[in-house]
Amino acid sequence: MSKLYFNCDYTEGCHPNILKKLTETNLEQTIGYGEDEYCASAKEKIRAACGKPNMPIEFLVGGTQANATVIDSILRSHEGVICADTGHINVHETGAVEACGHKVLALPNTDGKISASQIKEFCETHEEIGKIHMVKPGVVYISSPTELGSIYYLDELKAISKVCREYGIPLFMDGARLGYGLTASDNDVTLQDICELVDVFYIGGTKVGALFGEAVCFPNEALAKDFGYIKKTRGGLLAKGRLLGIQFDVLFTDNLYFDIAKSANEYADMIRASLDKKGYEYVAANHSNQIFVIVPNEELKRLDDEFVYSFDHKIDDKRSLVRFCTSWATKKENVEKLCKAIEG
Amino acid sequence: MSKLYFNCDYTEGCHPNILKKLTETNLEQTIGYGEDEYCASAKEKIRAACGKPNMPIEFLVGGTQANATVIDSILRSHEGVICADTGHINVHETGAVEACGHKVLALPNTDGKISASQIKEFCETHEEIGKIHMVKPGVVYISSPTELGSIYYLDELKAISKVCREYGIPLFMDGARLGYGLTASDNDVTLQDICELVDVFYIGGTKVGALFGEAVCFPNEALAKDFGYIKKTRGGLLAKGRLLGIQFDVLFTDNLYFDIAKSANEYADMIRASLDKKGYEYVAANHSNQIFVIVPNEELKRLDDEFVYSFDHKIDDKRSLVRFCTSWATKKENVEKLCKAIEG
Amino acid sequence: MSKLYFNCDYTEGCHPNILKKLTETNLEQTIGYGEDEYCASAKEKIRAACGKPNMPIEFLVGGTQANATVIDSILRSHEGVICADTGHINVHETGAVEACGHKVLALPNTDGKISASQIKEFCETHEEIGKIHMVKPGVVYISSPTELGSIYYLDELKAISKVCREYGIPLFMDGARLGYGLTASDNDVTLQDICELVDVFYIGGTKVGALFGEAVCFPNEALAKDFGYIKKTRGGLLAKGRLLGIQFDVLFTDNLYFDIAKSANEYADMIRASLDKKGYEYVAANHSNQIFVIVPNEELKRLDDEFVYSFDHKIDDKRSLVRFCTSWATKKENVEKLCKAIEG
Amino acid sequence: MSKLYFNCDYTEGCHPNILKKLTETNLEQTIGYGEDEYCASAKEKIRAACGKPNMPIEFLVGGTQANATVIDSILRSHEGVICADTGHINVHETGAVEACGHKVLALPNTDGKISASQIKEFCETHEEIGKIHMVKPGVVYISSPTELGSIYYLDELKAISKVCREYGIPLFMDGARLGYGLTASDNDVTLQDICELVDVFYIGGTKVGALFGEAVCFPNEALAKDFGYIKKTRGGLLAKGRLLGIQFDVLFTDNLYFDIAKSANEYADMIRASLDKKGYEYVAANHSNQIFVIVPNEELKRLDDEFVYSFDHKIDDKRSLVRFCTSWATKKENVEKLCKAIEG
Repeated sequence: MSKLYFNCDYTEGCHPNILKKLTETNLEQTIGYGEDEYCASAKEKIRAACGKPNMPIEFLVGGTQANATVIDSILRSHEGVICADTGHINVHETGAVEACGHKVLALPNTDGKISASQIKEFCETHEEIGKIHMVKPGVVYISSPTELGSIYYLDELKAISKVCREYGIPLFMDGARLGYGLTASDNDVTLQDICELVDVFYIGGTKVGALFGEAVCFPNEALAKDFGYIKKTRGGLLAKGRLLGIQFDVLFTDNLYFDIAKSANEYADMIRASLDKKGYEYVAANHSNQIFVIVPNEELKRLDDEFVYSFDHKIDDKRSLVRFCTSWATKKENVEKLCKAIEG
Repeated sequence: MSKLYFNCDYTEGCHPNILKKLTETNLEQTIGYGEDEYCASAKEKIRAACGKPNMPIEFLVGGTQANATVIDSILRSHEGVICADTGHINVHETGAVEACGHKVLALPNTDGKISASQIKEFCETHEEIGKIHMVKPGVVYISSPTELGSIYYLDELKAISKVCREYGIPLFMDGARLGYGLTASDNDVTLQDICELVDVFYIGGTKVGALFGEAVCFPNEALAKDFGYIKKTRGGLLAKGRLLGIQFDVLFTDNLYFDIAKSANEYADMIRASLDKKGYEYVAANHSNQIFVIVPNEELKRLDDEFVYSFDHKIDDKRSLVRFCTSWATKKENVEKLCKAIEG
Repeated sequence: MSKLYFNCDYTEGCHPNILKKLTETNLEQTIGYGEDEYCASAKEKIRAACGKPNMPIEFLVGGTQANATVIDSILRSHEGVICADTGHINVHETGAVEACGHKVLALPNTDGKISASQIKEFCETHEEIGKIHMVKPGVVYISSPTELGSIYYLDELKAISKVCREYGIPLFMDGARLGYGLTASDNDVTLQDICELVDVFYIGGTKVGALFGEAVCFPNEALAKDFGYIKKTRGGLLAKGRLLGIQFDVLFTDNLYFDIAKSANEYADMIRASLDKKGYEYVAANHSNQIFVIVPNEELKRLDDEFVYSFDHKIDDKRSLVRFCTSWATKKENVEKLCKAIEG
Repeated sequence: MSKLYFNCDYTEGCHPNILKKLTETNLEQTIGYGEDEYCASAKEKIRAACGKPNMPIEFLVGGTQANATVIDSILRSHEGVICADTGHINVHETGAVEACGHKVLALPNTDGKISASQIKEFCETHEEIGKIHMVKPGVVYISSPTELGSIYYLDELKAISKVCREYGIPLFMDGARLGYGLTASDNDVTLQDICELVDVFYIGGTKVGALFGEAVCFPNEALAKDFGYIKKTRGGLLAKGRLLGIQFDVLFTDNLYFDIAKSANEYADMIRASLDKKGYEYVAANHSNQIFVIVPNEELKRLDDEFVYSFDHKIDDKRSLVRFCTSWATKKENVEKLCKAIEG
């Protein structure tokens, strides 16, 4: 019997509505490279959701590609990207940013996040003592939800945005799991807020209902200049670009993107409730679809027969940090089984 | 009424069998990044078709990505890639190879191809006069079919392979349209021949029945070392990797890949027959799915209402070089309409 | 007995005035990285010679470094550099520009030069058919004197400058041998003209009297932004930066740079006179310090005992293209010996 | 009256013997690019000092260039370089390594050094959990003396070398100040030890008596393959290469390199004795030519009129970390003045 996967949010295919639409349109002929009407329609819907009628949008296939391409499109050779030391670009992208020639300037995280004051201090210090001998900060990267599941709150975003503008440094938000963040029970940020405070961000599809795809949005329109070229240069221009358009068109129809994300958070809350009963300690406690929790190894062993979770690292001889993850595709019955086993 | 597209081979979605399989497997849970059983199965089928039981295979999403990643994985910083001046990497990839740090060493093409003697002369000259002041040739890139639709014949491939081995330079074949090449009526090369003569090549899915995807095969196993890392570094690792596995698994079931490619070539032959009747001149005359033909502008004007073809460049004030292209999805009735219009 | 070298213009050390100044200042203490008073003084003298009081100037050690750093500082990832196919960056810099991520867009040369109309046509074609699939032209590189010894005349420069401004593309002039060009008998261009027509250029020291060093000048001041950083990133920031300042300070004192260059051209004219007597054919006939001439092999053999010249390539079984080169350090007596031997 | 500089070890020109030799040889003609007899002679002397008769050696102009070129020549695209977080490549080279495409994998330093066990743990962890999602460690960089003046002792080097070989990762030592390290009173390492334990290292000239220049030595001969090419690609091939040869030839004649370095250390010891009297606290206490010491601001103010030292950072409102630095050119009388002033 196959196990139940709670290790990550990309274990299934896509939301059935997407597959339906792909099937209906399959033999239609369209022009390539995202110049088709499905991409146009998807962009319109995203713009409407963001309240930004003219915002440039570019679709990419995956997150690492989106991160490296956006960062590379912004920076000159001597500039680097400020981020949390836990940032995906710093840890889990096999040096994709560096392969484009840029240093990742990692700052110590708190619950997966960095603060406006850290950014300010870094920039001030650079101006004072770094000068031409040190990498110049050229963009700030944050992810929300972060790699630990936490989210940036509105006051945090406002403060970061203010510092970035003070120093003339664009702010880039990795939204690979944006849907889960915006529908978390403690969230106080809207898409419109993001469009106001951030220069470029993306709406993640891969982990929120799509087969693949990230929609890169440029509230700061100037940053979109020639992005299409750089997308091609970095291998991110999909020949049958409409596949991305169709997926985002479906996801942004009737609030689907947010509805399915919210459901994942609710299932995660159920799991959190069971973990709470056991009194386990969290890392970066949060209300989105990722749970980082410290569990005794012997309890984990009990789960291993039936469930797959993600091992992060050993805390001590008796306990490990693990991740449980829900997604748009998670089934209630499976969550209940997991909860029962955890409480078990 | 919408027009009929004969401009390229990526205007439709995918072969219905693929969509069927994607639908059947959609809500199954698998591990990510291509470590799933569908990828394993697809690789087995490709290895069987190639007669190479242990050949490493890696799936990538698109051609530009495959080209840049393979070339980058082979070369050191001072090395470049020899190719035809018409080569896709030299013309239509927005400098993706250069963005990885490597010069494209373009040689004059004949019908889209380069010859063993050109490669030999280039390498000899480099050893004699280039030395450390010139880019060292580090890999040879050929595409078959070429960007002009022509194919490399067995004796040509053997000669090129011999020179490459003499100079210790790997030979890389871009097979974005491999299916169309291997089923062309004048082809004398087999997948097994390629595996014997070439160090690394890929089997193109995007243009031959898949939604997207290229299967990079390493007959020279040593070249596969750490390729997975570099795929990730270059943004080419698909989270839901099984999508690639499922597609190639279907394409390599019951000879589907070759059957649908052959059909495209036959439709192209029908179009060529009509063009022949008009006495038009070809560029790089061939028997695969791409037709580069010089047509009077006034004849083209007649076609414009109903058909889309691809404009290449102006020959003179009265004539243009255009491309007609068929694909696995081309319908006979549409071909007949086009033929009638051409002869018209 | 050692031979006489006429193969290139970097066979000796430096002009004695430079060595004298290096000796006088040797044990003075200055701050590093070019922030010293000698650099400041040299910049003032160059600015005065150029009639550009505020022009930013940056010193670099060598030509390949200067070329790659300047080009890299201007281009974004998807942009390339237009140049003649004979351009140094295209042929003899081991892919330094590509190693910074940029394609060299080589156009066919005429006598080592490209024309305004070639540049215009390239840019027009890119806008029409290239779009995001092809490398975008982002800077134009010319060298004057060229790699074949020819120079750009004022009307040529004006025309090129006009096209570049029309397309918003900076014009960069490699002046590794600028002194020899500006003092050639057929030259009609001044340093002031260059400052008016070109966006960035450098005054070559390595081949015109210095131990090493190139002075990069930015008539277009905006292009100098953060150049100091990129110089460091590309390994071109000299710790004891004053060495560059001292050398250019001496060279730009009392017209030394131009006087010694002119002398080299005059000696080259003497050699040309002897070659003329033999009726040899030139490639890119010119009046600067480089002579590219086709000489029968048996005549060359006669020279081999006493002289070193530079072999370029075989013309046919009986003749070769060779280069004779004079420099600021060439001695009249040696030129006379060579002339006699040529006429011999 | 000009101040006395104790801020760094590159404030003067070069040792007089070098200038003498440059003058004597100035108008000799030699071939370029380091193929001359002076380079050959210098290499022979270095090989003799190292006891490695066939060791490949390559000269480069500066340290940042040497570091980036060596690291780039070793690594493939997905690989990074392990180093101390205080390492020069991580802090003060404006991202030169990243500009070549590689991540710097910084580990926490102790007195400027990293340990064998840190390296081992990093590599082990990568093999266990990093796999293709994280940058693969491909080379280890250490500097000795470190950026804080401390040196690696023989047992530390042996342990690091052992781990590197266990994991098949080359060990690279930045010896920008190697002379000062090898002549420090607490040093127990010889050039021969380094050649046995390290794969590639360089002997710094810029900071130890030369105008500029670093001699990169490859005890692991295989790593020198095609290094000349990459030197050119990275802009590090000096046209008048003999300048490097002449300088190292002089430095390695009659033990000059080590004698002048030792003198610098002795002067630093004098300064340390004065600082000791004041009871100041050191960072990374050491016996080489750099002194990092915490000094009350009001004491510093007293020194400011007459002396230049290097400010590192503020410790608290009353104290700062500063660097005093001696060099081969430091004069005893100036040291005595400084000592007197410190003791105040």
